[in-house]
Amino acid sequence: MNLQLDEQGRLKHLLTTEGLPRSLLERLLDRAEPYARAAEAGFKKDPLLVGKTVVNLFFENSTRTRTTFELAATRLSADVVNLQVAASSTAKGETLLDTLKTLEAMQADLFVIRHEASGAAHFFAEHAAPGVAILNAGDGRHAHPTQALLDAFTIRRHKHKFEGLSVAIVGDIVHSRVARSNIHALRSLGCTDLRVVGPPPLIPAGIVELGVSVEHDLMRGLDGVDVIILLRLQKERMVGAFLPSLGEFHRDYGLTRERLARLKPEVLVMHPGPINRGVEIEGEVAYGPQSLIIEQVRNGVAVRMSVMAEILANTQ
Amino acid sequence: MNLQLDEQGRLKHLLTTEGLPRSLLERLLDRAEPYARAAEAGFKKDPLLVGKTVVNLFFENSTRTRTTFELAATRLSADVVNLQVAASSTAKGETLLDTLKTLEAMQADLFVIRHEASGAAHFFAEHAAPGVAILNAGDGRHAHPTQALLDAFTIRRHKHKFEGLSVAIVGDIVHSRVARSNIHALRSLGCTDLRVVGPPPLIPAGIVELGVSVEHDLMRGLDGVDVIILLRLQKERMVGAFLPSLGEFHRDYGLTRERLARLKPEVLVMHPGPINRGVEIEGEVAYGPQSLIIEQVRNGVAVRMSVMAEILANTQ
Amino acid sequence: MNLQLDEQGRLKHLLTTEGLPRSLLERLLDRAEPYARAAEAGFKKDPLLVGKTVVNLFFENSTRTRTTFELAATRLSADVVNLQVAASSTAKGETLLDTLKTLEAMQADLFVIRHEASGAAHFFAEHAAPGVAILNAGDGRHAHPTQALLDAFTIRRHKHKFEGLSVAIVGDIVHSRVARSNIHALRSLGCTDLRVVGPPPLIPAGIVELGVSVEHDLMRGLDGVDVIILLRLQKERMVGAFLPSLGEFHRDYGLTRERLARLKPEVLVMHPGPINRGVEIEGEVAYGPQSLIIEQVRNGVAVRMSVMAEILANTQ
Repeated sequence: MNLQLDEQGRLKHLLTTEGLPRSLLERLLDRAEPYARAAEAGFKKDPLLVGKTVVNLFFENSTRTRTTFELAATRLSADVVNLQVAASSTAKGETLLDTLKTLEAMQADLFVIRHEASGAAHFFAEHAAPGVAILNAGDGRHAHPTQALLDAFTIRRHKHKFEGLSVAIVGDIVHSRVARSNIHALRSLGCTDLRVVGPPPLIPAGIVELGVSVEHDLMRGLDGVDVIILLRLQKERMVGAFLPSLGEFHRDYGLTRERLARLKPEVLVMHPGPINRGVEIEGEVAYGPQSLIIEQVRNGVAVRMSVMAEILANTQ
Repeated sequence: MNLQLDEQGRLKHLLTTEGLPRSLLERLLDRAEPYARAAEAGFKKDPLLVGKTVVNLFFENSTRTRTTFELAATRLSADVVNLQVAASSTAKGETLLDTLKTLEAMQADLFVIRHEASGAAHFFAEHAAPGVAILNAGDGRHAHPTQALLDAFTIRRHKHKFEGLSVAIVGDIVHSRVARSNIHALRSLGCTDLRVVGPPPLIPAGIVELGVSVEHDLMRGLDGVDVIILLRLQKERMVGAFLPSLGEFHRDYGLTRERLARLKPEVLVMHPGPINRGVEIEGEVAYGPQSLIIEQVRNGVAVRMSVMAEILANTQ
Repeated sequence: MNLQLDEQGRLKHLLTTEGLPRSLLERLLDRAEPYARAAEAGFKKDPLLVGKTVVNLFFENSTRTRTTFELAATRLSADVVNLQVAASSTAKGETLLDTLKTLEAMQADLFVIRHEASGAAHFFAEHAAPGVAILNAGDGRHAHPTQALLDAFTIRRHKHKFEGLSVAIVGDIVHSRVARSNIHALRSLGCTDLRVVGPPPLIPAGIVELGVSVEHDLMRGLDGVDVIILLRLQKERMVGAFLPSLGEFHRDYGLTRERLARLKPEVLVMHPGPINRGVEIEGEVAYGPQSLIIEQVRNGVAVRMSVMAEILANTQ
């Protein structure tokens, strides 16, 4: 049974980009387009979801991500409730379920869930009542599907197609839900030259099975690419355990102006944010002319509006 | 002088169910009915309170209760402000008053107040400006009137009348604002066979004066009842002081499948939540076919909408 | 270049009252008038800013101030996001900028900023994208322009003009952004007899250059005044460093009924709140017939609505 799609292939929950058909991904990107354009023209409010209730249920603190979902729901005129829950207070599956069932009973229509445990969003989707939708806003190392969608949306706005595009994802692949969700989405959308680049301890075994190539040398990995997706290095967890030092990582994998100058002139630089200046990226590159980092944030609201509209149009 | 009712008998503040006339209680339940039905049909939004300001002023942390009041006000299209105040920072009556007067000056129309001190809601109602309403969301051991209303609403939806109904309230009666508010409401609504059941240290002296009978043996107390209202055991405060152990409480007073099977087949099980599985109730009973626990949560939003609509229709 | 005004003299950002022309100040007060009157008549909601996004970005905790801005924006039908940020986590200017740029990318239209560092609001205004407005809700000792506007609005409602009015500002002038903003606003509005009163350590050197007179003796400073603006004493920071004791401050500078009785009978008493009873003011004076303290809070919402309406009518 497919947790994400109903019998007619419509989106019920968005948990992961893995297994999502290309037509659905494209529809989600298409649906984001008018939201992005209207906002650029100063029109941000759509009455589509008046009377719907969206609950931001965040077990992991992320003001930035929570705010984009809050704005997306608010601009669709839904009622939004923000709940920040200490993960420790709901450690047991039983209690997680009580929380879900209680909020469901208050007739919430959609839960946006962020949790440090991989699989948390699936757990909620398995137990959700019919007509209640789960939107994964990041679960452990597993998936962050709206980030992948907004990245694909941003790439498409600049490159117009995925066929023939070379994309490199650089950095800490092993711990990254963003990398995993991007690989599934970009592969499904038709991108065939997809590379992951990083030091051996940060590249998971078996990643090639997802249809990507692996490169440990940065400049070889970036050779001829059209798009670079840098990942945020979780600095605290890294040094000692996976990396000798941040300085060494920057020396070997940091994207600098000097390195950027040796690549294709029209190469685009992306990063899910927040950036670590001087670690995975130089500040001048982050705010330079080839960077799409700020545009990614902007597109993030439009893409999340698209996903909410798509899912809630399928409930009643 | 009646703090809750004006000269025409209309509701100004809701502080306690004590002394509320049957006709008013029934009107509040009647008014909740269309909200409950509309929400079940997927219609949750009513423009009734556009432009009104509801302040959730919580001196005691309760995300669950706060969320139901927030949703109730939002679905009535009121503007809602959530204020979580550390009780310690407003320990003195003087400062409580400053807080009230400041928020009143911002033209709040209704304050939903939760406070650990019994009488806090009365204090606010005594000092509120004309046209400013106080809604008690639980004050100390004193009262929790909307919980009593939603319990009555839930019972009425299933049993249709209160005359001839046998209702048992089980557990820690002495510390429970829910028990007290339920007794007043159910008595006023016409329930004559109302029993409280629990170990002697948890039954307050003089409770029989409220028109209830007392039983210390669980199965004798539940004999022939139509509705069981279990109370949440405040575990931390109990053991040692009032009870030998949680296991012993469960052995003597926990509602299990086995015990439930020996009661009237149509008996209904209620609990204000959140439940302590394996203490006052077995998990299988809580989610079993006779449990109304989830329905209580759902009805809680409709009943709170009804109370807000009733009170704010009396102000301008 | 003027950060606050565009080439046509329209308000882009509100950072300080310093340098604002009288005509603009008067327009802001005029625009607040219908909001104040409508709210008094029970009408609080204006659809003016539907679809606009207001972000309350508070680096300093102030529930009271945040609530007035939240209500002002909500009553203008804007979407409001509250972000409480620990100042420590954004200590470096670089990171402050990342926060601003990220939220800008989510198409926020107006940022209400409170920060403990003087100049923080200017920093944001200097770096804000075109069409993004900054509203200073208090930055360090520097400025609190909406407080000054609401004070001027309150004075004008009672005294109808500023010419010929004597106003004394009493207390801790040296640390007070309220004092500074009030002086600039009242001077620009035509008030010529403006006095600051307090003990020598709390009067900044050079204050006379702003066009005020200085008095160290309270009753001499209040002689013949029409309006007294008391300041909140930051008790924790004061004793030892600037003052021998709170009792001594109250003895020398506290406004008591007895002192008030010796002044002009129609003198008005103002305070930005929250008051320290028994320090800068006696409780009986604070809630007495000459006090405008509660009215200041009420006017604060109308004035903030006026400022938001004025600024956002200049963007698109």
